[in-house]
Amino acid sequence: MYTIDLNSDLGEGFGAYKMGADEEIIQYVTAANVACGWHAGDPMIMDRTVKMAKENNVVVGAHPSYPDLVGFGRRKMVLSPLEIKNDMKYQIGALMAFTQSEGMKLHHVAPHGALGNQCQYDKEVARAICEAVYEVDPELIIYYCAGAVLGEEAKKIGLRTASEIFVDRAYMDDLSLVPRKMEGSMITDEEVAISRCVRMIKEGKVTSITGKELDIKGDTLCVHGDGPKALAFVKRVREAFEREGIEIKSI
Amino acid sequence: MYTIDLNSDLGEGFGAYKMGADEEIIQYVTAANVACGWHAGDPMIMDRTVKMAKENNVVVGAHPSYPDLVGFGRRKMVLSPLEIKNDMKYQIGALMAFTQSEGMKLHHVAPHGALGNQCQYDKEVARAICEAVYEVDPELIIYYCAGAVLGEEAKKIGLRTASEIFVDRAYMDDLSLVPRKMEGSMITDEEVAISRCVRMIKEGKVTSITGKELDIKGDTLCVHGDGPKALAFVKRVREAFEREGIEIKSI
Amino acid sequence: MYTIDLNSDLGEGFGAYKMGADEEIIQYVTAANVACGWHAGDPMIMDRTVKMAKENNVVVGAHPSYPDLVGFGRRKMVLSPLEIKNDMKYQIGALMAFTQSEGMKLHHVAPHGALGNQCQYDKEVARAICEAVYEVDPELIIYYCAGAVLGEEAKKIGLRTASEIFVDRAYMDDLSLVPRKMEGSMITDEEVAISRCVRMIKEGKVTSITGKELDIKGDTLCVHGDGPKALAFVKRVREAFEREGIEIKSI
Amino acid sequence: MYTIDLNSDLGEGFGAYKMGADEEIIQYVTAANVACGWHAGDPMIMDRTVKMAKENNVVVGAHPSYPDLVGFGRRKMVLSPLEIKNDMKYQIGALMAFTQSEGMKLHHVAPHGALGNQCQYDKEVARAICEAVYEVDPELIIYYCAGAVLGEEAKKIGLRTASEIFVDRAYMDDLSLVPRKMEGSMITDEEVAISRCVRMIKEGKVTSITGKELDIKGDTLCVHGDGPKALAFVKRVREAFEREGIEIKSI
Repeated sequence: MYTIDLNSDLGEGFGAYKMGADEEIIQYVTAANVACGWHAGDPMIMDRTVKMAKENNVVVGAHPSYPDLVGFGRRKMVLSPLEIKNDMKYQIGALMAFTQSEGMKLHHVAPHGALGNQCQYDKEVARAICEAVYEVDPELIIYYCAGAVLGEEAKKIGLRTASEIFVDRAYMDDLSLVPRKMEGSMITDEEVAISRCVRMIKEGKVTSITGKELDIKGDTLCVHGDGPKALAFVKRVREAFEREGIEIKSI
Repeated sequence: MYTIDLNSDLGEGFGAYKMGADEEIIQYVTAANVACGWHAGDPMIMDRTVKMAKENNVVVGAHPSYPDLVGFGRRKMVLSPLEIKNDMKYQIGALMAFTQSEGMKLHHVAPHGALGNQCQYDKEVARAICEAVYEVDPELIIYYCAGAVLGEEAKKIGLRTASEIFVDRAYMDDLSLVPRKMEGSMITDEEVAISRCVRMIKEGKVTSITGKELDIKGDTLCVHGDGPKALAFVKRVREAFEREGIEIKSI
Repeated sequence: MYTIDLNSDLGEGFGAYKMGADEEIIQYVTAANVACGWHAGDPMIMDRTVKMAKENNVVVGAHPSYPDLVGFGRRKMVLSPLEIKNDMKYQIGALMAFTQSEGMKLHHVAPHGALGNQCQYDKEVARAICEAVYEVDPELIIYYCAGAVLGEEAKKIGLRTASEIFVDRAYMDDLSLVPRKMEGSMITDEEVAISRCVRMIKEGKVTSITGKELDIKGDTLCVHGDGPKALAFVKRVREAFEREGIEIKSI
Repeated sequence: MYTIDLNSDLGEGFGAYKMGADEEIIQYVTAANVACGWHAGDPMIMDRTVKMAKENNVVVGAHPSYPDLVGFGRRKMVLSPLEIKNDMKYQIGALMAFTQSEGMKLHHVAPHGALGNQCQYDKEVARAICEAVYEVDPELIIYYCAGAVLGEEAKKIGLRTASEIFVDRAYMDDLSLVPRKMEGSMITDEEVAISRCVRMIKEGKVTSITGKELDIKGDTLCVHGDGPKALAFVKRVREAFEREGIEIKSI
């Protein structure tokens, strides 16, 4: 029997600004990565998003970032490990106030954007994040991109982990995501995307952009809620998984 | 037997900027009100301040503010009750991550600056703060300025409270602090200041700036750590309390 | 012969966030009030918006705000006159760098949101804004809501002014806008809205929400670019003005 | 006849926070690099600093930074050239509003901290800064650290330049500053520091940390105003220059 968690980045608006169709996508996922106010999100949005997650029976994780609101956390910053560690604690704690208010337990931590990318190969940054998470609450689960050193560091420190795969992204030979600026970075054919997902989950295999067969572990699948097409696609993914005997449930 | 808590606002630097002699004043108080990054403080400073409090056996409370770093939280903002409520949760939670990391429990909440002033008479704002605190953790204690509606709202909702008095501030007839811009707002004679404190604690009485005798309740005394004179003064306060049989201990 | 300027608030996105259909509405107006990064806007957006204004032959004004990004500048803050004065200079100057880069001259200043509302009746705030504008460049024009003390203060100090009227807002008896939360605040019937505009421009009269006939001066008309309906409406406004012999041109 | 400009970074406080003895150091320099609110400084401080510069007959330059207040602009960020260009324009323009208000002309631009370091070797970043400066006002002078590609890019684009040398810093063989974390990065012996300066100015030579003789051009000398020792040292530097026939004047 195969199981998969479906996660999505939510609560990424800010003040008067909207981002994504949160109210709809949340109905189709099992885990929400909620922005903590540093690349997106604010206390009002965090409150609404956590309440919405509770109503939809979706677990809540923190989606912390570099302090870069205008750059949406997508720009690399060179911070010291201790700065990263404390920045993580701050954001995780801020979100915990909202889950605690709803009688929920914060479930996981999934670093956002440029910080997430840094965790693919930077052990020091990955370690700093894991230490922060472990010290705040050792029961939190680290969501890491398949292949990232973040997963290894999390295991070393004694944290539970979930390996994240992507429904619509191509992989390099080292399992890192093909950068968005490179041709072929997105899997645009929905059929292909879905069968790749199924294979990653069932066989633990994926074909890289150069044609290599790679081992990959998929515990959680990242889906997006932007645009009307995205929602229809998520529904198709769910239907395909049902047909294939892949149970969708949170970790 | 009389007892009093000595509190001080700590961790109010920001980034490269210092504010106050935290390392020294923390040795003389029993409670720290720690800035949460909105009027002052940042994750690095919060981490250091909480660790310092632990080492000095000082309880840690949150010192949340309006979102006004450049104004040091001293400028009034007109926010909706729900905005205030969520802003409080965010800041309290952020600090909790640091106390939790040190195996400490967050002890109290003491609103800062213009937000604290607003709690003197604004029931809606006071209520919003109390709801936030109660929902995040109903065991948190509200520190309120003697006479403020914040105390009443906290009790109504079922929170424990501590009435805060000031070592060096004069009172209006309604127990609000004489505004800093008015003449006579500060009690500059240290002897007078200390005997006023002793009277507030032992007799529950204080003379207002117009000469009226007022009832006042003092559970916690706010002292400042700015300037070398401040530290010497805190030592004198402690000595006077010892002579007068007033035990200094946290709530 | 009657003339009117058509202005719109533009460049009010932030980072990854969009706000309004700037690219379309700019084709139908003669003046752009460009956000300066404090309630909305950022250097990238300011650059794009100024370039777009130049291409469309639209004059550029500054749309400065209280420092309140998360509140979109819609929340009242109590700042000192000197703080307001310097905050205005900062924002106006920041935008001037972009107009200067394009060989354009900054044309006017139109305070945003809660700051704009404050200028309806608060002489000190209005004076502070006018002083800032005058000291930076005495040729800048102040756009003020019809009836606001901002207009008087601007004239006193020697600045040129333009009285702004609104295409879709109802007026109180003192010419202030009916607050958005009150019933009847918006003129929803497009025919009514347009004929009110024509009357304000040609006769200098408007009927208040209580039915009083008020004198009003309309030099510039504020239109919005949010939603597809808004654009169609602006086109109708322009057609009506053409029929009525009202020439649309910048001040 | 030799001449040198003495510059110092000023206006680097923020809100309630002080940084450096601006009021005193400004009496001993000929050029002020004024923070523009992104790593330090705010509109109130910019206003005061520009007024102070005018009173002391000191020219004002912009000291722009990455958007990193909590990191004091000392942490590297990876921004696109266009982001850097627009960020520079914003900050330069903001400061220009204050010089313009005082009837002064902005004199130069000197990038701060991590951004300044980046200009040592990163042509793209250096080019972006120079384009911004040139487009806003081609008469502005670029202050660059001796040896930095920023100087070359500035000349290519047609800007005037000033090569900056440091009174108390050691040099690597490529003329970059010895990083602060390395031993020997600071010249702590005041006599040695002063005679190095004199040699750089008169002979255009400096000995690197490895003992190599390097060619160096010194148009402007950076001095610091932090600490009481700093001020005494600046006075000694000035006296030495007088003895050596080096005239101190702005560029």
